[in-house]
Amino acid sequence: MPSQPFNGVLVPVLTPFTRSGEPDAARFVAFCRWLLNQGAGGLAIFGTTSEANSMSPAERMSLLDRLIEAGVPAVKLMPGTGACAMTDAAALVRHAVEHGCGGVLMLPPFYYKGVSDDGIFAFISGVIDRVGSPALKLFLYHIPPMAVIGYSLDLVGHLIKAYPETVVGLKDSSGDWSNTAALLERFPGFAVFPGSEVFLLDALRKGGAGCITASGNVNVPGIRRLYDNWRGPQAEALQAEITKLRTTLQAYPMVPALKAIIAHYHNDPDWAAVRPPLVALDRAQTAALIADLDKLGFTLGERPQAKAA
Amino acid sequence: MPSQPFNGVLVPVLTPFTRSGEPDAARFVAFCRWLLNQGAGGLAIFGTTSEANSMSPAERMSLLDRLIEAGVPAVKLMPGTGACAMTDAAALVRHAVEHGCGGVLMLPPFYYKGVSDDGIFAFISGVIDRVGSPALKLFLYHIPPMAVIGYSLDLVGHLIKAYPETVVGLKDSSGDWSNTAALLERFPGFAVFPGSEVFLLDALRKGGAGCITASGNVNVPGIRRLYDNWRGPQAEALQAEITKLRTTLQAYPMVPALKAIIAHYHNDPDWAAVRPPLVALDRAQTAALIADLDKLGFTLGERPQAKAA
Repeated sequence: MPSQPFNGVLVPVLTPFTRSGEPDAARFVAFCRWLLNQGAGGLAIFGTTSEANSMSPAERMSLLDRLIEAGVPAVKLMPGTGACAMTDAAALVRHAVEHGCGGVLMLPPFYYKGVSDDGIFAFISGVIDRVGSPALKLFLYHIPPMAVIGYSLDLVGHLIKAYPETVVGLKDSSGDWSNTAALLERFPGFAVFPGSEVFLLDALRKGGAGCITASGNVNVPGIRRLYDNWRGPQAEALQAEITKLRTTLQAYPMVPALKAIIAHYHNDPDWAAVRPPLVALDRAQTAALIADLDKLGFTLGERPQAKAA
Repeated sequence: MPSQPFNGVLVPVLTPFTRSGEPDAARFVAFCRWLLNQGAGGLAIFGTTSEANSMSPAERMSLLDRLIEAGVPAVKLMPGTGACAMTDAAALVRHAVEHGCGGVLMLPPFYYKGVSDDGIFAFISGVIDRVGSPALKLFLYHIPPMAVIGYSLDLVGHLIKAYPETVVGLKDSSGDWSNTAALLERFPGFAVFPGSEVFLLDALRKGGAGCITASGNVNVPGIRRLYDNWRGPQAEALQAEITKLRTTLQAYPMVPALKAIIAHYHNDPDWAAVRPPLVALDRAQTAALIADLDKLGFTLGERPQAKAA
């Protein structure tokens, strides 16, 4: 069983943008610190929820530089390093490894559809070989609802066999529990994270490492409570509670909804901005979302201390 | 009707790679010249067939620089400038405009699925506004089989209305003739290119500007013959002939097959290389493809003169 530093509630961190549409490093650093203070087990920055693919590789690397400069522990970071081009992906992975990041989360090359497992294997192995670092811990990012192509069970097995010290885990955002269960059964010791806390208790019972979930941006404490007490008598009730919040969130476009929540509860309206092709919630949607959350008695922790730029 | 410089047979040019997997600029320049000498009406470099998304923006820009330095006329070039990030797309578009390219071909931001027309509009208008050049002629690249999201008829209308001098055409790789026909009917004067020569005669009869087709890499003369004689008595026969070749090609993975053809008929085996996630044809597939082509009496023009690096 290869070592890897992540467990618990990992958060694919939202990326704030300034009014002119640029990544807002000051707000980003403050928000990352806040999530860790709330109990996040790691920060999967530059994921789907982070609008990572709406940023250039240079923009992503610059934000990571800023986090490290600000003293956020690199070992807690699992930046998304996926790209359609092997050269871009290798540059992002190399940069993360040089910073000492605990791991990287790797999309398959998502432009071409209908590609073979052999083609995806060649891509991932090409990236690993180009980087050539024993420090690299690579987590596969399986998200067919966005990438369409994904990591089949056989391909996962092939990659683990070829790179047992490097390919150490997977985020399963298929939304298909049977796939997550099959991964946990077939690859014991491989760190499997479902992409939603809805599957957290089921995953932990089968040896899962935790979850990497968008809703972590607004509910680390609730999800963490289940993670810390999953063997206890309250586990089912805690699962039901976080599932209820997740279900409420899922009635809205996820990324704009999460940003609207931060903007509202932290009284920081600029947080609501997204980059195209995503579209921010309008006033009516935002009001409906907040009303739904009020019904659940939702609260968000204190606003991050560092003053936003 | 806005001016735009393209018509006839446009080729999404294959990108050769060296044995070590780097873009091979010398072979690329020679091949582009060869296609123009064969009668191509323009070169849609950096399209799907070009494995453009398997290259970093810097690699694409460097190849374009090399073409221009080699004296290939910029007005004949329609580089693909699509990217998931507005900042990457704007950089690619700006670079193409600065070189005086005749136009650019623009994928929608293809990572997120289920995005709205408003979100795609905001992306394209954001790119146009960031570049801010009256010299920009932008062609929309509609290819739902790969990008999954695409340009609806209403969105095309919205973009033409907002940017009548800039958004001047569209490549329709939907494979759905009814969509191409609807575009031609609804937007007279807008330059519509089907993404396959199979629809060339039908498109020309409805006012289409030509086609932009992968098979142009190996059959400019045949497709050009139909383009030059579409009003003549041989049109249907010429269409049937090029459709037959296209159908043969489509029995194989298109990009690897086209590269295998160049490698075989130009006796230049390195041409067969592709970048992951694509996979080159194996020997048996290549032999079967060549046998199929022999049955059609297929020939390829003379090998490009410039010596490959």
